[in-house]
Amino acid sequence: MCELLGMSANVPTDICFSFTGLIRRGGETGPHKDGWGISFYEGKGYREFRDPEPSIDSEIARLIKNYPIKSKAVISHIRQANVGGICLENTHPFSREMWGRYWSYAHNGQLKDAKRRFPASFYLPVGTTDSEQAFCWLLAQLRLNFTDQCAIDPMGKALHGWCEQLREQGVFNMLLSNGDYLFVYCSTKLSWITRRAPFGKAHLSDVEVTVDFKEETTPDDVVTVIATQPLTDNEDWHTMQAGELIVFRDGEVVVRHLSEQEQTKTDQPG
Amino acid sequence: MCELLGMSANVPTDICFSFTGLIRRGGETGPHKDGWGISFYEGKGYREFRDPEPSIDSEIARLIKNYPIKSKAVISHIRQANVGGICLENTHPFSREMWGRYWSYAHNGQLKDAKRRFPASFYLPVGTTDSEQAFCWLLAQLRLNFTDQCAIDPMGKALHGWCEQLREQGVFNMLLSNGDYLFVYCSTKLSWITRRAPFGKAHLSDVEVTVDFKEETTPDDVVTVIATQPLTDNEDWHTMQAGELIVFRDGEVVVRHLSEQEQTKTDQPG
Repeated sequence: MCELLGMSANVPTDICFSFTGLIRRGGETGPHKDGWGISFYEGKGYREFRDPEPSIDSEIARLIKNYPIKSKAVISHIRQANVGGICLENTHPFSREMWGRYWSYAHNGQLKDAKRRFPASFYLPVGTTDSEQAFCWLLAQLRLNFTDQCAIDPMGKALHGWCEQLREQGVFNMLLSNGDYLFVYCSTKLSWITRRAPFGKAHLSDVEVTVDFKEETTPDDVVTVIATQPLTDNEDWHTMQAGELIVFRDGEVVVRHLSEQEQTKTDQPG
Repeated sequence: MCELLGMSANVPTDICFSFTGLIRRGGETGPHKDGWGISFYEGKGYREFRDPEPSIDSEIARLIKNYPIKSKAVISHIRQANVGGICLENTHPFSREMWGRYWSYAHNGQLKDAKRRFPASFYLPVGTTDSEQAFCWLLAQLRLNFTDQCAIDPMGKALHGWCEQLREQGVFNMLLSNGDYLFVYCSTKLSWITRRAPFGKAHLSDVEVTVDFKEETTPDDVVTVIATQPLTDNEDWHTMQAGELIVFRDGEVVVRHLSEQEQTKTDQPG
């Protein structure tokens, strides 16, 4: 398995604090040694840093930890390989251009028979992972059914349906972004937290680091962080349900869909 | 104007020496302060580092200078902006996936009326430069006329024709690669050098650095470096002709086309 980290914020914000916690899991407090990556949006601009080395040993991860790149949307991933060898082309996040924007994606989980069930068309995978196969299929579905002028509600609903199809083939926890929206789908394990005024202190679970967000923020800042497992041990994180899709923009929830199955369970009288 | 740097080699080779010379021109020995970028191929894997900051001040450039990433194909660019603001989405190299490979590109020059003359179709620009517009158009021409099974000779010939069309609209010095081939087109200014055994010493023009390639290489290594201006002052670089396209693979010239105009000039009795 792997671990995911995402951020959506209403002001360009650095992710150094959360990333410091995450990379410990890449060979120190966790077994995710098979590469790591992170992508940042700066307006329509996009850059990603990826390394097939364990994050804990990576020169580039050290730079990212210490060099604050400010962004409103971030996707990061540390990998413990199952399908596909350990090499750069199999290292998340993956990205493609669609509708004149860069789309970025990372996946945690494993899908059966991905190549046959989720055939590539418009976008082709470069590496050999089930994850990239699913990404190429998902983007093609979006491209075939929508344009960049479409509203987010129908797009979120359709994306939820496609993610449900993917989940039927295994485990599909996913982060997807075009820089404006961050689409988060939970198959088995994802948590999130929104930090806003009044800000307090947060303490990382994986390393002895505390940050006082009061000193780092202004009262209007809204910053949401999404992670496979909560990164701090003194805050309340929301646990996502299996089959739940949330779309964030500027740190706020703008669309949310539950699996019909789970929805039925929730609706039943207790 | 901008400066280009490319490399094609038959073994994974680091470009630290040449990059050390180039980045001096990004705000110190040269005026190219409006961002820089570099892309590396590692097998089918691809990564790029881009920064809208001057290369001479960039933390990330410092990392690249000191952290040897070994690659058989590299494209780098330092920018002095003309068309398009200084921001990440206008920073070269640009990349897109085609035929299951990442294609990377950087341009030096300026094109008149690029948006109208070289319309985007399959690939859309994310930023606002004439350079990215031309890249999207070029890739779409390749995609419409070839497949990944096609031989390099007809592809090189067709690419030369399209580059000639681009040159008619201004200045178009270009590097393009899919990791195997490095396509180099000269409109006004590009030089190249192939280093092979017996290796000697090379001395940078822009900074007091000498390297003895004998100590860095094996006798079978073939490494070609392409640059807007020669980077060393004690070696003989080839100066490309206006309208010349060279395709390198594993450091060797595999295809070469001259402009018909220049060809005629050369064929005339002296």
